[in-house]
Amino acid sequence: MTELNRIAERYIAAWNETDAAKRKALLDATFTGDISYADPVMQGDGHDGLGALIEGAQQKFAGFRFSLKGTPDGFADYIRFSWALGPAGAESVVEGTDVGVVKDGRLKMVRGFLDKVPG
Amino acid sequence: MTELNRIAERYIAAWNETDAAKRKALLDATFTGDISYADPVMQGDGHDGLGALIEGAQQKFAGFRFSLKGTPDGFADYIRFSWALGPAGAESVVEGTDVGVVKDGRLKMVRGFLDKVPG
Repeated sequence: MTELNRIAERYIAAWNETDAAKRKALLDATFTGDISYADPVMQGDGHDGLGALIEGAQQKFAGFRFSLKGTPDGFADYIRFSWALGPAGAESVVEGTDVGVVKDGRLKMVRGFLDKVPG
Repeated sequence: MTELNRIAERYIAAWNETDAAKRKALLDATFTGDISYADPVMQGDGHDGLGALIEGAQQKFAGFRFSLKGTPDGFADYIRFSWALGPAGAESVVEGTDVGVVKDGRLKMVRGFLDKVPG
């Protein structure tokens, strides 16, 4: 698994992790302390800010799972990857593509774009 | 036409413009003076740096045209749009998606990703 894949997989795992302690460990492993996150519907900074966004998404989409879509790519310190969100084993409800800045193996900035939204 | 569309259309026009004076005017209209551009194969800063990249691409892909693919989207000060490059009226040879930061209607930063590359 490449470094870009590892980063994207950890990112997806963090968004799926419902156990607070395990999620905190994943946030630490995946994001720098000053992570800046924003997408069209929410934004938050730092492990606490992003953790709150993840909790909110898990409540809004209870029972849904994020999964990586396709293969992450990138260049220099940039990474791009796509994801899908939906009930396990069923068609996705939401899809998006995130662009991030990597620093020492962790994400320092993420800007998320939506590729598929519920009609 | 929305503001995001206008920005993306001007961006494509700048990459297609082979007349140096017209291209300079398009660069001025489309990019801030401190524009930072990078993609997997090249990077350049400022109107002169980006202008040199555009000239290089035009020489490498002589006769090809850039066109906008799909509809630009964005949020806050971010824009995302996809493009195709190929002979006029024929199938594209290269495609990509660019993410940019907009300031007062002009692009201040662009990071380009490749979606289709020649085999």
